[in-house]
Amino acid sequence: MTNPSIGLIGPGAMGLGITRALIRGGFPVFTRDVDPARDALARAAGATVCASPADVARHAAIVITVVVDAAQTDEVCFGTDGLAGALPDGGIVVLCSTVGPDYAGALGARLAARGITLIDAPISGGPARAAAGTMSMMIAGPRAALERCAGAFTAMSDKRFVISERAGDGSRMKLVNNLMAAINLVGAAEAFALGIRAGLDPEKIHEVVMASSGASWMAGDRMGRVLAGDRTVTAAAPILTKDVSLALELGRSLRFPLPQGSAAHQALLATLGLGFDAEDDAWVIRVYQALSGIRLPGEEPH
Amino acid sequence: MTNPSIGLIGPGAMGLGITRALIRGGFPVFTRDVDPARDALARAAGATVCASPADVARHAAIVITVVVDAAQTDEVCFGTDGLAGALPDGGIVVLCSTVGPDYAGALGARLAARGITLIDAPISGGPARAAAGTMSMMIAGPRAALERCAGAFTAMSDKRFVISERAGDGSRMKLVNNLMAAINLVGAAEAFALGIRAGLDPEKIHEVVMASSGASWMAGDRMGRVLAGDRTVTAAAPILTKDVSLALELGRSLRFPLPQGSAAHQALLATLGLGFDAEDDAWVIRVYQALSGIRLPGEEPH
Repeated sequence: MTNPSIGLIGPGAMGLGITRALIRGGFPVFTRDVDPARDALARAAGATVCASPADVARHAAIVITVVVDAAQTDEVCFGTDGLAGALPDGGIVVLCSTVGPDYAGALGARLAARGITLIDAPISGGPARAAAGTMSMMIAGPRAALERCAGAFTAMSDKRFVISERAGDGSRMKLVNNLMAAINLVGAAEAFALGIRAGLDPEKIHEVVMASSGASWMAGDRMGRVLAGDRTVTAAAPILTKDVSLALELGRSLRFPLPQGSAAHQALLATLGLGFDAEDDAWVIRVYQALSGIRLPGEEPH
Repeated sequence: MTNPSIGLIGPGAMGLGITRALIRGGFPVFTRDVDPARDALARAAGATVCASPADVARHAAIVITVVVDAAQTDEVCFGTDGLAGALPDGGIVVLCSTVGPDYAGALGARLAARGITLIDAPISGGPARAAAGTMSMMIAGPRAALERCAGAFTAMSDKRFVISERAGDGSRMKLVNNLMAAINLVGAAEAFALGIRAGLDPEKIHEVVMASSGASWMAGDRMGRVLAGDRTVTAAAPILTKDVSLALELGRSLRFPLPQGSAAHQALLATLGLGFDAEDDAWVIRVYQALSGIRLPGEEPH
């Protein structure tokens, strides 16, 4: 069976990686970006660059959107030369951006009215894993549509979680995971900083915690990088801040209180307020540094 | 070299396990408890039961204390027929209870004035691991004293972290770990409960989170048991509540704010307030159930 053509709107950091993974998997890919520099990168990766979302839709009945947020998704689908007017009946939109689940659900209904199926499939793992085809996907959509995308999803991701058939559940699951990740991250920063303030060796804290009941993926990864003074940005602080905002909105819409999530959000906001927008979210520990004057590993005494 | 005799004050759930591990390791063990029922269990395990802490100290120059808190530790050391008056010069007290680090530091100084060395060595892992000799220990004390205890510690624990030579640092490290564990636990409960309220399948939440950035040891273990409806008590809710209280006191003494830890503590307090004192701390999720009316796995609809 020939691989179907795949459209991809938004070959940014993640989108370009996905483009590469699909091309390596043998899928013809048609891309579109508002930024000509991204178009050039997509072309160099082997994609066919199109002039508009509608133009993409004329070449591919399955279109992946990897834009920043709900507003851009709306523009791509329903704006001038948008997807919705050009996709054939039976077309599929795969929404890989993290948006509020209510938005995803409503988008699904609006597209369905035009004979288009939405698959809500937020992704995570960062650009390197996207390009390697090893990012994770949390996938929600009708079974038949998922089957039509199975080959493409296999090329894009080796960690695919099928959540349900209800558009929005992919986003809900991602928000639940990222809420937990944010709480674990801020909690790790808080406890590490307390330990440093109390005179413990930070390397020793990492060793003990990661072998004990305090272990978390976030403590291992992010505090490991704080210890090493590694300033690599794998996830810029505003991204997790936005995800927790969306989780708090989900809680609000369900009248579900999130005290831990709210406290974590405050610390992430302070990270941005202190000017660390372009840094990795690991550096939320600087909020505790600002509150206590602790010295982080590798830094000079004041 | 013959194994030295070891004293053990408080053969409770953890202490009896330690007694068994030491005896299996070839150490003569002398125990003392205020409860004759515990004396009987220690005797059945092969220990020699003594009439008082002083009596224990007359048989063993290394005495492990596994009592509930600082007040009991004080009574055992300095009360009527206490350890401090009977241990020989060069005797060693191994403090395995979780106490405030300031108390541990002060106790070290008071014992040192009598020629006795304190090793501050809080433990974790629960009674089954204590009996198997596989619990963890966070050990702080002078190198020479640690060397004299090396054989006994190896019999007691296969996960020994030597933190520093300063009495109190074992407790500090344990509080840092348990603070992080509590935050991860309450965060996992909060995010799981949100997901359930949002209509996600709880099994799926567990699967996705544990393979993603939200993973933590606490989410895996405790939420796994919530999913299975497993009411086994591996750590009763008041224990972690007390440990977080001690961590908050440590923060207070250092003027170090702990917003995540405070929020986690409130949820743990509510767990006790709801009457779940005798339940495992996994059931902190009932606080979120009380706040939202969610149905937990395996429970009937209201």
